[in-house]
Amino acid sequence: MRLQLSTWQEVDDYLKRTTAIIIPIGSTEQHGPNGFIGTDALCPETLAFGIGEETGALVAPTLSIGMAQHHLGFSGSITLRPTTLIAVVQDVVNSLARHGFDRFFFLNGHGGNIATVTAAFSEIYAETSLRTAGSNRPPLQCKLKNWWDGEGVQAISKELFGKAEGSHATCSEVSLTYFAYPDHVKTAEMHPEIAPTGPIYDADDYRKRFPDGRIGSNPKLASVEAGERLYKAAVRDLSAEWRAFAA
Amino acid sequence: MRLQLSTWQEVDDYLKRTTAIIIPIGSTEQHGPNGFIGTDALCPETLAFGIGEETGALVAPTLSIGMAQHHLGFSGSITLRPTTLIAVVQDVVNSLARHGFDRFFFLNGHGGNIATVTAAFSEIYAETSLRTAGSNRPPLQCKLKNWWDGEGVQAISKELFGKAEGSHATCSEVSLTYFAYPDHVKTAEMHPEIAPTGPIYDADDYRKRFPDGRIGSNPKLASVEAGERLYKAAVRDLSAEWRAFAA
Amino acid sequence: MRLQLSTWQEVDDYLKRTTAIIIPIGSTEQHGPNGFIGTDALCPETLAFGIGEETGALVAPTLSIGMAQHHLGFSGSITLRPTTLIAVVQDVVNSLARHGFDRFFFLNGHGGNIATVTAAFSEIYAETSLRTAGSNRPPLQCKLKNWWDGEGVQAISKELFGKAEGSHATCSEVSLTYFAYPDHVKTAEMHPEIAPTGPIYDADDYRKRFPDGRIGSNPKLASVEAGERLYKAAVRDLSAEWRAFAA
Amino acid sequence: MRLQLSTWQEVDDYLKRTTAIIIPIGSTEQHGPNGFIGTDALCPETLAFGIGEETGALVAPTLSIGMAQHHLGFSGSITLRPTTLIAVVQDVVNSLARHGFDRFFFLNGHGGNIATVTAAFSEIYAETSLRTAGSNRPPLQCKLKNWWDGEGVQAISKELFGKAEGSHATCSEVSLTYFAYPDHVKTAEMHPEIAPTGPIYDADDYRKRFPDGRIGSNPKLASVEAGERLYKAAVRDLSAEWRAFAA
Amino acid sequence: MRLQLSTWQEVDDYLKRTTAIIIPIGSTEQHGPNGFIGTDALCPETLAFGIGEETGALVAPTLSIGMAQHHLGFSGSITLRPTTLIAVVQDVVNSLARHGFDRFFFLNGHGGNIATVTAAFSEIYAETSLRTAGSNRPPLQCKLKNWWDGEGVQAISKELFGKAEGSHATCSEVSLTYFAYPDHVKTAEMHPEIAPTGPIYDADDYRKRFPDGRIGSNPKLASVEAGERLYKAAVRDLSAEWRAFAA
Amino acid sequence: MRLQLSTWQEVDDYLKRTTAIIIPIGSTEQHGPNGFIGTDALCPETLAFGIGEETGALVAPTLSIGMAQHHLGFSGSITLRPTTLIAVVQDVVNSLARHGFDRFFFLNGHGGNIATVTAAFSEIYAETSLRTAGSNRPPLQCKLKNWWDGEGVQAISKELFGKAEGSHATCSEVSLTYFAYPDHVKTAEMHPEIAPTGPIYDADDYRKRFPDGRIGSNPKLASVEAGERLYKAAVRDLSAEWRAFAA
Ligand code: NI
Ligand code: NI
Ligand code: NI
Ligand code: NI
Ligand code: NI
Ligand code: NI
Repeated sequence: MRLQLSTWQEVDDYLKRTTAIIIPIGSTEQHGPNGFIGTDALCPETLAFGIGEETGALVAPTLSIGMAQHHLGFSGSITLRPTTLIAVVQDVVNSLARHGFDRFFFLNGHGGNIATVTAAFSEIYAETSLRTAGSNRPPLQCKLKNWWDGEGVQAISKELFGKAEGSHATCSEVSLTYFAYPDHVKTAEMHPEIAPTGPIYDADDYRKRFPDGRIGSNPKLASVEAGERLYKAAVRDLSAEWRAFAA
Repeated sequence: MRLQLSTWQEVDDYLKRTTAIIIPIGSTEQHGPNGFIGTDALCPETLAFGIGEETGALVAPTLSIGMAQHHLGFSGSITLRPTTLIAVVQDVVNSLARHGFDRFFFLNGHGGNIATVTAAFSEIYAETSLRTAGSNRPPLQCKLKNWWDGEGVQAISKELFGKAEGSHATCSEVSLTYFAYPDHVKTAEMHPEIAPTGPIYDADDYRKRFPDGRIGSNPKLASVEAGERLYKAAVRDLSAEWRAFAA
Repeated sequence: MRLQLSTWQEVDDYLKRTTAIIIPIGSTEQHGPNGFIGTDALCPETLAFGIGEETGALVAPTLSIGMAQHHLGFSGSITLRPTTLIAVVQDVVNSLARHGFDRFFFLNGHGGNIATVTAAFSEIYAETSLRTAGSNRPPLQCKLKNWWDGEGVQAISKELFGKAEGSHATCSEVSLTYFAYPDHVKTAEMHPEIAPTGPIYDADDYRKRFPDGRIGSNPKLASVEAGERLYKAAVRDLSAEWRAFAA
Repeated sequence: MRLQLSTWQEVDDYLKRTTAIIIPIGSTEQHGPNGFIGTDALCPETLAFGIGEETGALVAPTLSIGMAQHHLGFSGSITLRPTTLIAVVQDVVNSLARHGFDRFFFLNGHGGNIATVTAAFSEIYAETSLRTAGSNRPPLQCKLKNWWDGEGVQAISKELFGKAEGSHATCSEVSLTYFAYPDHVKTAEMHPEIAPTGPIYDADDYRKRFPDGRIGSNPKLASVEAGERLYKAAVRDLSAEWRAFAA
Repeated sequence: MRLQLSTWQEVDDYLKRTTAIIIPIGSTEQHGPNGFIGTDALCPETLAFGIGEETGALVAPTLSIGMAQHHLGFSGSITLRPTTLIAVVQDVVNSLARHGFDRFFFLNGHGGNIATVTAAFSEIYAETSLRTAGSNRPPLQCKLKNWWDGEGVQAISKELFGKAEGSHATCSEVSLTYFAYPDHVKTAEMHPEIAPTGPIYDADDYRKRFPDGRIGSNPKLASVEAGERLYKAAVRDLSAEWRAFAA
Repeated sequence: MRLQLSTWQEVDDYLKRTTAIIIPIGSTEQHGPNGFIGTDALCPETLAFGIGEETGALVAPTLSIGMAQHHLGFSGSITLRPTTLIAVVQDVVNSLARHGFDRFFFLNGHGGNIATVTAAFSEIYAETSLRTAGSNRPPLQCKLKNWWDGEGVQAISKELFGKAEGSHATCSEVSLTYFAYPDHVKTAEMHPEIAPTGPIYDADDYRKRFPDGRIGSNPKLASVEAGERLYKAAVRDLSAEWRAFAA
């Protein structure tokens, strides 16, 4: 059930069943020579729709822009500063809390969001802890779940890509977006085949360490077929997780 | 050309042709008994893709959550505080400016965004005017364009809906989303047929004045067919506007 | 009744009659070769005193500095960043709300303030809508009224200045300040007679487009006499508006 | 020379002579049974105009609203939060610095402003010290001067009022406003004659300690005549101070 | 070498050898019935002094207050909101960067700080990536290192405490503080012996789940002797890590 | 009683006796050729422990980093921007207020903190005055006390150092730290013997006026013995002050 395609009366009805909601959160940043700039937003969005179909979960609009300062050396990348992203998460949660939502399942597509979104949860909880929360706000529970963390996905990724999976512009995430947008599959050569690895600092440093944007991956191995397997496994993994959270 | 489906190298190529970009911006808020909560985001997003096809414009991911504090009395509505939205617009523009973008065409779907987004532009320009902008930021031009403002759209809206068009949950915007999502067309009775009008203050006041969420409209008149006519007219109007801005 | 010249006991008495207040808001920015830098603050201040005499309205001190980033290319111009101005408006309203004021009539002298002050109103309303407002704050209504918007003023301006009125350093506003400060009438040549028009971005861009600061006007036509007519019409227009708002 | 009554060209000329400016800063807060709510803004404004006449100093518009949270228990009082006031002072100084002003003489009328405005100066200097100031900002010098601190004023105050001078709603400040606005002189009984003294915390506490708003004063002794003597002494004291600062 | 006990000339000399610095960061929060409220600050401080002796590293003053909103249900706990802590880390790093420091080794004593401090690093890097960093700031590298993460410490903890180690008010951290402050060793009964485990939300929820403050631990097992072994192992682990980072 | 070495149950017990607490606040900044960079934090910390022993007062962890922007021209100096320090003080006070603390005795070691910390108090009180404080926060009283202000200290300082005391890197503060850390006494020549005096603006200006960091002092006169006398006098002065405040 997509929030964007629902009426407010339908949301009222939903709230009689459960007060939990899925919020896909991603990023807009380079994903190497053959990955989409929207990869990190499109993955959780696609999966959230799948979970929604599977479980009846309500899916909020995707927060498509995340914390991606380190990718700004590559054209098209967009970042929110951490403090901006904290304010966004805070406003989204507080808005929904007014309607009675009290459990927030952030389905995340971007490693770079984890710290900031977790900090945002603490900022929100601190409003309760310091007694400054909205005067009728119920106790809240926020959860950040990376789409790739489930056992099913991990097993497929290991089987199909092994060491070439990498940690940015991974074979799995590129595959998943190819499955979701098969008309947009891209071809590109990779030099070297497997990208280098290393720590992450600012955008200038990142571009020097990772000249084509990938970290540790060879996404030439990505495919629609792999994406489909990953999609199914992820929806299965995450639907179970959602059901436990929303129960 | 959708930014989310492009690679960074494709954006590099695009920047050789033009340094302008379209950024759809909307809201997530009730749209009465038969309108989608996502109406204000889905309209500019749909049209931006149309303009992109027509003109080759690059389309950034939609900013789906806007300034909608007055709708918080209705379930599912989400707001960013104005200061949060200003920070978001600022970060998006400054990120893209780093890559060389210098003209930003915000295609807007929500009247409630106009003041805040315009204030955000001033906040951004003030960085230049006070000499605190990023040290290599070029002079920037930001434009906010409401999708419904063109002559073609206005004429159709007048012809089809006349006084029933209204100002929130309008027949035109509901039609446009029905055209974009025909499987989700909703049916609902309207009491009264044409909703009341009045000023806008906070969410509690809004709910009292406008009990089902509409202002001045009878969106029962909305239809896929009307949406199609509006879509074509809007893409035509806005493509011309975009070409003039990006030239 | 000027707040600055009242005691707190007199304000207590006033609050028994009405809980509305006028807050003049302007700007400090160049107004071309013969206009005062204070024009946009002095106009609403002068008129607010007039309305106060006419209607007994309480007039708060003028917020003399507004959002004027685009004028910073000309000496003496001062801006608040939009986020600063939002905080100022918020604090002023919340302070007065503690005393029981609940309707705020911002009499505005500067087009550049409109977006930001409107955004500030939403920031204030959002405190109610998100339930974070001061624990005893009543529902609030804020209104922004441009002094030049009334019918009487528009008619005189059209009659006297026609196309030479312009949109910045207008004949009308210069006349009104000449009427208020006749000892300070200035003489200056205008080249060209009628200033150019165009869009507004940052201060550097502004200075290039509008070399002497005016937009579209020939304020050489300004006079004390015109100012007097405008003053009387504006006080009449605005007093009616105030009465309706404060009733 | 009043900035509000000058043109930008006149400010350009002034800057050839000196790059210093006077900025009156006050407050809007109760001043007991017979003092004006605007006392703290009107005093430095009146004196600044006097200094301007005496020395040719340029006088910016008065910042009429200061840090007055402790007075919010009395109707009509308005405060900026300290962080808001810091942002205001910062923006004012940075705007003027763009034109070449580099010495800022804040003529203060309110003890409650001293800490916050001094903190604001540090916030501004920190931009230089941390290298984040506007890219062409010169080294700046900000000075806060309380109008009542000069020897001349102190002597008169001691002579005329002795122990009845007090520290809020003082005989001297009330006298000075009576001199400036003789048509608004107020009469009120004082119980007790000399108000109590004590520390300052929040507004509720303040109202309990100081039921009619005064601290330690008996402003029944205030008079137009005393105000005139104080005015002359203050203009003399402060003009000397200004000349030393602006030299 | 403790920064607090050095002169600025000694820091100048140090900077000729290396531009790296250790910054201990902790928290002030309940640590169950027999743990110090200062545990999380005292551990990294004690160890940082040890590393300093071992390697000559310069040790900044401890940031003793961290992100501990979830502990506010227990007396004496203090939190910074995440956005406050981000600002603190930002200011500390930017201050030191002005002197030429460019590698910052945050030695952390509190799991609850990890997300926020990592977000702070991104906020700092974003200044470089968006070109708004101080005009002479070099490229920076920030590292967050939890004191308990090294192999030596993990092995001892496993050997001595096994499952009773827990995750808050752990046997290891209590032991380490007992070693550092042997005069303050506390005795208390634990009911149940091993504390419950569970997720962390706000302070009210925390107190319900973890009534005496511990999570999963039995710190009755803590001892000065264990603390000494942990101290030595940690200094060894961390000195190696520091040397690699500072090289 | 040091908060860092207490358990939460011990704090619960303390709160039955008194709801006041001491919070040492200092700075990390150059103190001339022979003074410690930590002088301003170590002095109040040392004294607070003394007062704690004398009176049983609870002593919070030292806020070691203050407002020291003007010292950034000397290596090792660290500043918080005033707005950051305000947020820190606000969070510390609000955290402790949740436990029932309502009187906060900030024992200060740095003149540069006075304005900002005083502004922070007003920011905190404004939450009460504007009714936005945490929903169960009691009325609060905050006090800033400079450790050197007592009569006993002043007398010794005058007797021992006279005009050589100065106002930064004073003989007294250097002596006090030498007493507290006798192993770290430093020797350095002073040129000139007594440092120059002057106003304080930004860090570049400061370094020009005060080339070795001192203002008006000759801290070569500092000694452990003097420090001991000052320590005893200060503990006596301040314990009396604390008792009056906490009663
Ligand atoms: Ni990714
Ligand atoms: Ni709409
Ligand atoms: Ni104007
Ligand atoms: Ni006063
Ligand atoms: Ni711990
Ligand atoms: Ni000192």
